[in-house]
Amino acid sequence: MSRTLSTTPKQDGFRAPGEFEPKAGCWLIWPERPDTWRLGAKPAQKLFVEVATAIAESEPVTIAVSRRQWRNARAMLPDHVRLVEMSTNDSWLRDSGPNFVIDGRGEVRGVDWTFNAYGGFDGGLYAPWDLDDLVASKVLETERMDRYRSALIAEGGGLQCDGQGTLITTEQCLLNRNRNGHLGKEEVERQLCDYLGLDQVIWLPRGFAFDETDGHIDDLCCFVRPGVVALSWTDERADPQYEIVREAEDILRSSRDTRGRALKVHRIHHPLPIEMTAAEAEGVDRVDSTWARPEGNRIAATYINYYPGNSVVVVPQFGHETLDRQACADLAELFAHHRIVGIENSREILLGGGNVACITLPIYAGQKQS
Amino acid sequence: MSRTLSTTPKQDGFRAPGEFEPKAGCWLIWPERPDTWRLGAKPAQKLFVEVATAIAESEPVTIAVSRRQWRNARAMLPDHVRLVEMSTNDSWLRDSGPNFVIDGRGEVRGVDWTFNAYGGFDGGLYAPWDLDDLVASKVLETERMDRYRSALIAEGGGLQCDGQGTLITTEQCLLNRNRNGHLGKEEVERQLCDYLGLDQVIWLPRGFAFDETDGHIDDLCCFVRPGVVALSWTDERADPQYEIVREAEDILRSSRDTRGRALKVHRIHHPLPIEMTAAEAEGVDRVDSTWARPEGNRIAATYINYYPGNSVVVVPQFGHETLDRQACADLAELFAHHRIVGIENSREILLGGGNVACITLPIYAGQKQS
Repeated sequence: MSRTLSTTPKQDGFRAPGEFEPKAGCWLIWPERPDTWRLGAKPAQKLFVEVATAIAESEPVTIAVSRRQWRNARAMLPDHVRLVEMSTNDSWLRDSGPNFVIDGRGEVRGVDWTFNAYGGFDGGLYAPWDLDDLVASKVLETERMDRYRSALIAEGGGLQCDGQGTLITTEQCLLNRNRNGHLGKEEVERQLCDYLGLDQVIWLPRGFAFDETDGHIDDLCCFVRPGVVALSWTDERADPQYEIVREAEDILRSSRDTRGRALKVHRIHHPLPIEMTAAEAEGVDRVDSTWARPEGNRIAATYINYYPGNSVVVVPQFGHETLDRQACADLAELFAHHRIVGIENSREILLGGGNVACITLPIYAGQKQS
Repeated sequence: MSRTLSTTPKQDGFRAPGEFEPKAGCWLIWPERPDTWRLGAKPAQKLFVEVATAIAESEPVTIAVSRRQWRNARAMLPDHVRLVEMSTNDSWLRDSGPNFVIDGRGEVRGVDWTFNAYGGFDGGLYAPWDLDDLVASKVLETERMDRYRSALIAEGGGLQCDGQGTLITTEQCLLNRNRNGHLGKEEVERQLCDYLGLDQVIWLPRGFAFDETDGHIDDLCCFVRPGVVALSWTDERADPQYEIVREAEDILRSSRDTRGRALKVHRIHHPLPIEMTAAEAEGVDRVDSTWARPEGNRIAATYINYYPGNSVVVVPQFGHETLDRQACADLAELFAHHRIVGIENSREILLGGGNVACITLPIYAGQKQS
């Protein structure tokens, strides 16, 4: 039960909510592919259980799991986490899943972007990606939500909405020749506005260095609420992100949102450089059609890749006491009514190529305008 | 989200509803295996679409479909039928799915019998059956319902409840040495009562001849409402079912239900003998571990294998004008407030080994005692 609509959300009076808006649930995909996740995904599975359990305190959690992993996932997860069977290519549900749009009458629909595994055969991370391109419709079917299919090549992790018609994204990702470069900036912006119900797009030129997704915004910054952005930060001149975060801050501070406000930026210092060890690299299957993270590969680590639930904020932790604690304290200030839950050793998720936000898909609750 | 409970429904105050009680939905499994369904299941798929579409008029329909058949099923089914991905061994959801039990406070739970494909390696119909034994828990997870797991080997099609604590079943099936023969009748009856919240079991010695399931009750008779049974019937002395239906009628008429009533029996004449043609048999893959229906094999056809929805009754039709019409007229009398929908050419379902009731799983609605 998921009609595929031929209109656009904007035409139908729908808008993308901000990530901080009320949720009806959260989905994840159980990790298993051994050419992404080291040691047959066993360490990652433990971390996914931690993330799922933390979020389940806040809203109902559903995990999509392959036929092969069903019994193992059921045995590892607590009873109150729902399993549904789904075949996928990998576990980045933020990117393969739908973006949601809501109206003022309590309805929620999904936007199903075209997915090409972060660049298809021109620098993408894995092939094939046919199953991941079906993930959005499968989630929407199970949730009984109607669907807009867009020809735009996009991933949820590359899009940050304020819920009031403003989007932050990067040119590096959406205008990449391996995504929508051929369409030109104006046309891409028009389609984003149509499918997310937007009036304003703030373009940053690039995301993090070392980000394999071609600069997803969700490693760099996110809306904490309308008008307020959290930005991953460093004061280390030698850090390759040094220039990038300053460039982003300048643009964000000089931008106006749809309400005409200048954006407030909160800096959140990111962790020290994290590199994959030889032992870790050895634990990953080598497969021609999958991008192989070599030993010593630096990984785009950031606290910004957190999950803001209804009552908890689930935050990556990297075993660096001072920085970990500072990030949690910063977020506790920004989310005064939430419990901050740190995920220790979230390095194990990061080794696969992302973090808490990348593996989670919030299902937004319908909202009725009073 | 489906807790596995270690109590029994009887202990917890739950009872099995009658098939005529209010439903919240209906599930089916998309047919595909070419060693059950002729011509790569294409003719059967058409019929499943008809059945699903007919039931969707009455309650929301969900179809479980394999990864491989997802796109085809989506293209063949109307938008308002929900798809969920599920790997299965075959499409007999009545048998692989859960039995439901309800309490007086609006809760619905599932009973997950042990499933062995109608007899395991001692006369069962296919091997392996590991995926089908997981189907009940997968349905219950998606529906967010708690689950009782029973060690009893049973299938929903072998059990007919009146919703008031009475069950009709057959010794041929449940006491078969390939099911629960080793437990003895008394113990099997005790477990049935515990898991379906029953007080009375009416045992018929056997089901239909030619029924590959070892005499499932759902080819022979069913409760239309408490105290009233529809019985497949024939007056043809040469019909191998002639003695069987008379034996059943005698027992039913002389039995008392939990309220002390004698059962009223309505005879519904079954169709003329239906045999698989050579051309039809040739369309089925021959596989060692799957029971092969030979050319000329008589199939246990009956109108009793209908689906009673909230507002429609979906009835098999076999291309025999008089008998088809009579069966619909009989059911129209028994279900005065329902629309009777005949499924023409349901022979195509029957060629796989069952009919409308066998492929459908009603999801019962919670009921609050006033």
